[in-house]
Amino acid sequence: MNEERKSAIYLAITQAVMEEIKANQIEVVNDRNSRVPVSISARHVHLEKAHADILFGKDYTFQKYRDISQPGQYACEEQVTIVGPKSEIERVRIVAPLRKQTQVEVSRTDGFTLGLKPPVRHSGDVSGSSPISIIGPKGRIDLEEGCIIADRHIHMSPMDAQTFGVENHQKVQIQVDGEKAGIMGNVTIRVSERYALDMHIDTDDANAFAITGKEYLRLIK
Amino acid sequence: MNEERKSAIYLAITQAVMEEIKANQIEVVNDRNSRVPVSISARHVHLEKAHADILFGKDYTFQKYRDISQPGQYACEEQVTIVGPKSEIERVRIVAPLRKQTQVEVSRTDGFTLGLKPPVRHSGDVSGSSPISIIGPKGRIDLEEGCIIADRHIHMSPMDAQTFGVENHQKVQIQVDGEKAGIMGNVTIRVSERYALDMHIDTDDANAFAITGKEYLRLIK
Repeated sequence: MNEERKSAIYLAITQAVMEEIKANQIEVVNDRNSRVPVSISARHVHLEKAHADILFGKDYTFQKYRDISQPGQYACEEQVTIVGPKSEIERVRIVAPLRKQTQVEVSRTDGFTLGLKPPVRHSGDVSGSSPISIIGPKGRIDLEEGCIIADRHIHMSPMDAQTFGVENHQKVQIQVDGEKAGIMGNVTIRVSERYALDMHIDTDDANAFAITGKEYLRLIK
Repeated sequence: MNEERKSAIYLAITQAVMEEIKANQIEVVNDRNSRVPVSISARHVHLEKAHADILFGKDYTFQKYRDISQPGQYACEEQVTIVGPKSEIERVRIVAPLRKQTQVEVSRTDGFTLGLKPPVRHSGDVSGSSPISIIGPKGRIDLEEGCIIADRHIHMSPMDAQTFGVENHQKVQIQVDGEKAGIMGNVTIRVSERYALDMHIDTDDANAFAITGKEYLRLIK
């Protein structure tokens, strides 16, 4: 290899290295814009109309307990008991409004308590998930599937997605500081006009990373 | 800057980059040697002699239920109830042999159940930790301190420490793959001739990262 060719290669590598350094500097500057608020989802139940009719009586109107981070969604005053093969868990809140399909979201810890090993799923994807029973004040339903562990995910608007430079369904990582520091991987981006910027994790993730729900966590692509 | 000087700089940078690439390749080769087995510690109680006398009767002999990963340590047949301000948890195993100071190790999830916010501590460091009561078949003790969340830690022999290139008390990170992938930070290295290579995590970390206890996890310095 002649000297000219060598020098061209060295220059190309140098430029690549310099670009990488520059990109990292930009990343530091953008740090304040790369953080996401986080909410902790306790175990809860979404009901479809037919099941709400059985558990609470026909055309029952659910009472708002408190708003949750996504517009129009709220936790209800009404609670049910969820029943697995090993044991049951009482006082599990309904989240309204009603949905197309009943879905019970628990943590892996809850799964061990109930005697279930629910799969980690996006909300709404209950096909082949764990069987579970639900007992309400007016009746009981036995589901062949419907119990899942919700995946780690971040709701955001299209404008947020542009700011973060991410796309719907993209997987990102989230960095956590503190005494139980670490990185949460396999975090799914969910983009919709209806969404407010918020990360949702279950109580296992919250407790493992000592997250209280007041943090702004750093998104890593 | 003349051409010769430029070329020298490019060469220096190129060599640095090549060394980095080479180091990374060595890292890949060493991957099989950089993994650590992991055990999940369920909530448990270590007792001092005076407290064992109160809870189980004077000079009681504890029965081995099963060996745990550290030589000479074993989970016992005997169980107690631990009591916090909010509620109690039954069937918590004693881990023998007896220690200098009674210590109750729980997860953060257990803490919420009990109504406690125990600090994350090294085993043995119970000063100023959460108050807790313990009920045994023969009596009850009320501790002003003693309830902790054990920190993430890795037991290893001096030879293991040499292999991994780490020191006693060093903090490392542990990488987890799979659908609940991520990195556990603030993992403390504990070196002793008495120790067998094993990482210890609590049930919150296990459930957040979907760890079953059969994995070999990658240590990152």
